[in-house]
Amino acid sequence: MTKDGSVMEHGEISSKAPLVAPVAAGVNRAVAVVDTFLRFIAIIGTIGSAIAMGTTNETLPFFTQFIQFEAKYSDLPSFTFFVAANAVVCTYLVLSIPLSIVHILRPRARYSRLFLVFFDTAMLALLTAGASAAAAIVYLAHKGNVRANWFSICQQFDSFCERISGSLIGSFAAMVLLVVLITLSAFALARRH
Amino acid sequence: MTKDGSVMEHGEISSKAPLVAPVAAGVNRAVAVVDTFLRFIAIIGTIGSAIAMGTTNETLPFFTQFIQFEAKYSDLPSFTFFVAANAVVCTYLVLSIPLSIVHILRPRARYSRLFLVFFDTAMLALLTAGASAAAAIVYLAHKGNVRANWFSICQQFDSFCERISGSLIGSFAAMVLLVVLITLSAFALARRH
Repeated sequence: MTKDGSVMEHGEISSKAPLVAPVAAGVNRAVAVVDTFLRFIAIIGTIGSAIAMGTTNETLPFFTQFIQFEAKYSDLPSFTFFVAANAVVCTYLVLSIPLSIVHILRPRARYSRLFLVFFDTAMLALLTAGASAAAAIVYLAHKGNVRANWFSICQQFDSFCERISGSLIGSFAAMVLLVVLITLSAFALARRH
Repeated sequence: MTKDGSVMEHGEISSKAPLVAPVAAGVNRAVAVVDTFLRFIAIIGTIGSAIAMGTTNETLPFFTQFIQFEAKYSDLPSFTFFVAANAVVCTYLVLSIPLSIVHILRPRARYSRLFLVFFDTAMLALLTAGASAAAAIVYLAHKGNVRANWFSICQQFDSFCERISGSLIGSFAAMVLLVVLITLSAFALARRH
């Protein structure tokens, strides 16, 4: 019960207790770093998709007296929804970056991860809805549909069609990243002992 | 240190140690019960959607010598995808019920919950893609699109259009349920101490 003895005891306690904890914390910190990194890639994907679709505009070089043939993304409601969904998800991802960085500094955070899981899931649903609705229309623009008497518009608006097809890629990549992000958050929550 | 004393001690330990644990286990057990229940509702939603869409078939009462006017879900690829997506998600949900019941019996399970989070998320993406692609085409069938020269088909195929619109409801309900299921699983993981 000397001063030295009590110091030793304290030392023992503080060196024993974290024996397991730092490993768990280290893995969770690595998960948080990957999480932040993937969010940055997903931001690039969604913003790229929104811009690529939002700036699509093709005017054909011929026109009649009354009509100028022009194709814009805003002619089709699904494409407008696509741009809006990508913009919303991109904004959410930017706002979620600080929280993701907090998880690097405090790897044991639980309820903030739960918060991220919920909003990531909601945003995944929104992004998938936007990307999938746009993909359905892009498919129709390429192939048309004989039974419904809808004709392909891609013969006339060639570069428009290329552009709208390409703009889907960023969204679908971001969808995959969001699935990974949700699983990573759940993994970090499952690891906590 | 009498026999009685040691029994008392044992009694004390076994009544003290689980003081916190049963509460946590109890909440997680309740979560698992809700989880199982919601899965059953989601199964009804997806199977209803798949059947409602899959059996849609309208033949108009007039026909020419060459063509009989008929509308089927399989005329439009998006609707075929919709039926397939609902069937796959429904099958997955049925297969996930036993695991959900295991969580009622073993509320502390962690990695099996992580497994469910991952597959629930993947299925949410699949179901949303199917429902949203079908919704985009249903919208087009109702409204048509002047700029792309796609005409509404709902004037002719009235009951067909009502049926395909209605069949979306089950899918969108199941989407919301899957978001809740993922959040519940993450909540159960976050609660574990």
